[in-house]
Amino acid sequence: MPQKVRIALDAMGGDVGASVVVPGAAISLSRHPDSEFLLVGDRAQIEPELAKHPALKAVSKVIHTDVAVKNDEKPSQALRRTRRASSMWLAIDAVKHGEADVAVSAGNSGALMAMGSLNLRTLPGVDRPALAAVWPTLRGDSVVLDLGATIGGDARHLATLAVMGSAMASVLFNLERPTVGLLNIGSEEMKGHGEIREAAEMLRAMNSTQFNYIGFVEGDAIGKGLADVIVSEGFSGNIALKAAEGTARQMFTLLREAMSSSWLARIGYLLARGAFQKLRDKLDPNKSNGGLLLGLKGVVVKSHGGTNAEGFAYAVDVGYEMAHFDLLTKINQMLNRDGSALVQAQTAQEAVS
Amino acid sequence: MPQKVRIALDAMGGDVGASVVVPGAAISLSRHPDSEFLLVGDRAQIEPELAKHPALKAVSKVIHTDVAVKNDEKPSQALRRTRRASSMWLAIDAVKHGEADVAVSAGNSGALMAMGSLNLRTLPGVDRPALAAVWPTLRGDSVVLDLGATIGGDARHLATLAVMGSAMASVLFNLERPTVGLLNIGSEEMKGHGEIREAAEMLRAMNSTQFNYIGFVEGDAIGKGLADVIVSEGFSGNIALKAAEGTARQMFTLLREAMSSSWLARIGYLLARGAFQKLRDKLDPNKSNGGLLLGLKGVVVKSHGGTNAEGFAYAVDVGYEMAHFDLLTKINQMLNRDGSALVQAQTAQEAVS
Repeated sequence: MPQKVRIALDAMGGDVGASVVVPGAAISLSRHPDSEFLLVGDRAQIEPELAKHPALKAVSKVIHTDVAVKNDEKPSQALRRTRRASSMWLAIDAVKHGEADVAVSAGNSGALMAMGSLNLRTLPGVDRPALAAVWPTLRGDSVVLDLGATIGGDARHLATLAVMGSAMASVLFNLERPTVGLLNIGSEEMKGHGEIREAAEMLRAMNSTQFNYIGFVEGDAIGKGLADVIVSEGFSGNIALKAAEGTARQMFTLLREAMSSSWLARIGYLLARGAFQKLRDKLDPNKSNGGLLLGLKGVVVKSHGGTNAEGFAYAVDVGYEMAHFDLLTKINQMLNRDGSALVQAQTAQEAVS
Repeated sequence: MPQKVRIALDAMGGDVGASVVVPGAAISLSRHPDSEFLLVGDRAQIEPELAKHPALKAVSKVIHTDVAVKNDEKPSQALRRTRRASSMWLAIDAVKHGEADVAVSAGNSGALMAMGSLNLRTLPGVDRPALAAVWPTLRGDSVVLDLGATIGGDARHLATLAVMGSAMASVLFNLERPTVGLLNIGSEEMKGHGEIREAAEMLRAMNSTQFNYIGFVEGDAIGKGLADVIVSEGFSGNIALKAAEGTARQMFTLLREAMSSSWLARIGYLLARGAFQKLRDKLDPNKSNGGLLLGLKGVVVKSHGGTNAEGFAYAVDVGYEMAHFDLLTKINQMLNRDGSALVQAQTAQEAVS
């Protein structure tokens, strides 16, 4: 019999904590019955919720702490105040000590990245972590990274993102050789920052058997699904994500307004309700909930803070799949193969400069 | 009687040239009868089109050239090959020599920016030009810049963008003191690049009577309409624009699919057709056609290359309004007042470093 997947949950993370985290875990468990949970947080809040979900209770252990990272706390403050004590830190700690295969938190993103990096450390060959997520496109799903874990970075950093994103895409979408595009402005060779052009050369030179570098892509390529993996440094990646989210929300609002602007439109809406629901499902931010912190010696999933139980369950699902399909080993393998090419590229470059 | 607004059109620009440019000008003329046109391009292509629009013909002069910038040409190539000869160059030249108040082109963006900069030169106090456009939001329209004219730039560059964007917003939306936000990732003070934080300090210190700096905004703030002017360096600005365009297109496609997925949905669509049309109008990319090259000693409007006559007419409208309300004088006034604060800020900074 295969091993269980052990998932550590920060039960105090997010806008509401245990009352979303516990029922979310219960939903995910119903989809993946081979899960086990470590619920880290205030026992007094967790246990009443757990009592409502006997199946979850049967496969869960509670680790008590009443220290929680605040949502508006600066990462440095959170580290000083709650290191080794908060539910967030202890959930990550469980991964570090092999008591869990993955940690999931809906808490403060900055603090989660800081604690993840500090406690788990980065993988050999990785300088700084990245935040990756699944982006629904017109041709299925793509992996987009970095969505804001690290600002800036040199060509080697971008190439490492390409390798890690490819590992994630091949595990998640079961692809032999995912396509990779570098986010840039304009597809002409002369545009963009120097480090992006350099990264392009590096990726082309690697000529990897594990991913297929297809060149520069512009911001609208993401929604079109032009590549399985879209690579950007964290600043632009975050801007792209937020601009797209803002546009989607704007369009839903305008659509709602339009659909209630006249009696005819309202009747039309009622008739087409099923179709609208399908559209909503396809672009449901809950369903693409679950950003992955990549590049650490352990898997950490970041859920939206304002999500509901259904949405949190999707983040737990992402954690389950990454652990079940052993993303970490895949990333390590790819970094060892393609990563050595990266290290050589860097060394050659340093020798020149 | 007030002066006419004289508009120079690159009649060879865009995917099709004169057959879009000429009817587009005719549409804009019907909205602004006090316009006059210089149509620059191949007489053999322009005149048959002009013959179909007698009202336009009556207020137009043709400047003949059969040299056109190619859509896929690199800016440096375009400059070498067509400087002082192409329809694009000559349209800009008409502005330089005071024969036109504004130039409009649907041609190659990179070439237009290069030729605009080289021929018109930047205004005193402006280092590099910016591309600004009107962005439809949930609370009306906002001005967003730079959408890709200049990659990177220091704090002073960003502050100059804020001043120029405010000038454009106050002219275009008739605002006393438009609100200005700096595009960043996360609204916490500690995030983002150093130059953005520095620009924030500069804008706060300026305490301008002509615009109201409201702080950092994230990518989703654009669609929400949280500020009248959103300022970013050109790389991230372009990524934001393209990501938003991609998402809008993606949603329209999914909506169309959903609305034809069943008979009920199709009937619903027919009933709600008016409402859909309203939504489409609100987000019609044609209607927000017309990016403005800011920071030059002359006004140049960039239209989408793939637009139709209706869309090109909107770009001409933008040019008309900017000339009619004398944007250039407004920018110069604001740069002289607030710009001197910028120069002082820079000098103080240089003295320290």
